[in-house]
Amino acid sequence: MPAVTAHIGMSLDGFAAGPNQSPENPVGVGGMRLHQWLLSTRAWHEHWGREGGAESVDSEVLAETLHGVGAYIMGRKMFGGGDGPWDTSWRGWWGDEPAFHAPVFVLTHHPREPLVMKGGTTFIFVTDGIESALDQARETAADQDVSLTGGANLVRQFLAAELLDELYIHLSPILLGSGERLLDDVGTPTLEQIKVVASDKVTHIKYRVVR
Amino acid sequence: MPAVTAHIGMSLDGFAAGPNQSPENPVGVGGMRLHQWLLSTRAWHEHWGREGGAESVDSEVLAETLHGVGAYIMGRKMFGGGDGPWDTSWRGWWGDEPAFHAPVFVLTHHPREPLVMKGGTTFIFVTDGIESALDQARETAADQDVSLTGGANLVRQFLAAELLDELYIHLSPILLGSGERLLDDVGTPTLEQIKVVASDKVTHIKYRVVR
Repeated sequence: MPAVTAHIGMSLDGFAAGPNQSPENPVGVGGMRLHQWLLSTRAWHEHWGREGGAESVDSEVLAETLHGVGAYIMGRKMFGGGDGPWDTSWRGWWGDEPAFHAPVFVLTHHPREPLVMKGGTTFIFVTDGIESALDQARETAADQDVSLTGGANLVRQFLAAELLDELYIHLSPILLGSGERLLDDVGTPTLEQIKVVASDKVTHIKYRVVR
Repeated sequence: MPAVTAHIGMSLDGFAAGPNQSPENPVGVGGMRLHQWLLSTRAWHEHWGREGGAESVDSEVLAETLHGVGAYIMGRKMFGGGDGPWDTSWRGWWGDEPAFHAPVFVLTHHPREPLVMKGGTTFIFVTDGIESALDQARETAADQDVSLTGGANLVRQFLAAELLDELYIHLSPILLGSGERLLDDVGTPTLEQIKVVASDKVTHIKYRVVR
């Protein structure tokens, strides 16, 4: 059965983003350090249609998280463009041909027409909540997984609502000291550790949410 | 060169103890779940002079943390007996023959004569702070390591004071939701991930503190 999955970077002290997040810097101060491990991977380069990058454990993990995804769900903060009504000149951070190659359901309080990008990515704006977004994403994904792209707030909402099946955490050996915690206020769901893989930069741990 | 090490259990949401800690229950509600992985190991049984227990990755990790330690440093809360002046009938939680088999320097605000136990464990009470405890422990340990037994507060103090060389975290797939965080208010020391080992119950990650 297709799963609802999330994969997200976390610091050892539990933050998915640094302090002083803003529309211009949604990952906060120092937050990009949590994603350094993926930038050098072969899978990341391939995902964006580029040559190069290194074959590595990290690359394999990234490829795994990108495989078999039929639809994505994304938080408004991650899509960008501020948090008020839309300025429709804002088309996301990812250029004309984003690497999702699938429908991306963007949660927002402000309606907007779907945005069809090159390469199979369509941003669809959902204003009636996470369950509606999930229903639509599941229908689109059919027998493939639905993947949460983040940010942390979206993952927290899905965990708290008991709608998440798999949580894949990329745990960096970094202390941010402050910022946005990934796992605050999600209740205490039961997790089962189902996979652990590590490079010298990061430890990847996949958890199944037991229901 | 001998190192100052700490090994401590942590929940995925960053807690080393659950809520409602008390002198009778220093690990707080649910906190013992963070230590379940070690109770069934061969190394734990051997440490306490008992037969049985399972050979496993977890057992190897525990044996590693117990090897080559010349002296321990312990927080008052972990030693127990309340937090006021000593009732000298309190001799710790570990019976007449504790499994430390080495000097244990206990940090406290209240002076007390050393307590000589069977099997080589002596509890030595230190009232003039962590640096004094460390000096004494280092001198006693000579060419062996000094290990912090915990609790979390002690580990935090050593991290914040830049006195810790190695932090070995046993990360359980557990969300406690509240309690005592291991890594709050320690500043942002630079860590290097030097070892990752996992069983199906817990992920062990050893970090070197870079100075």
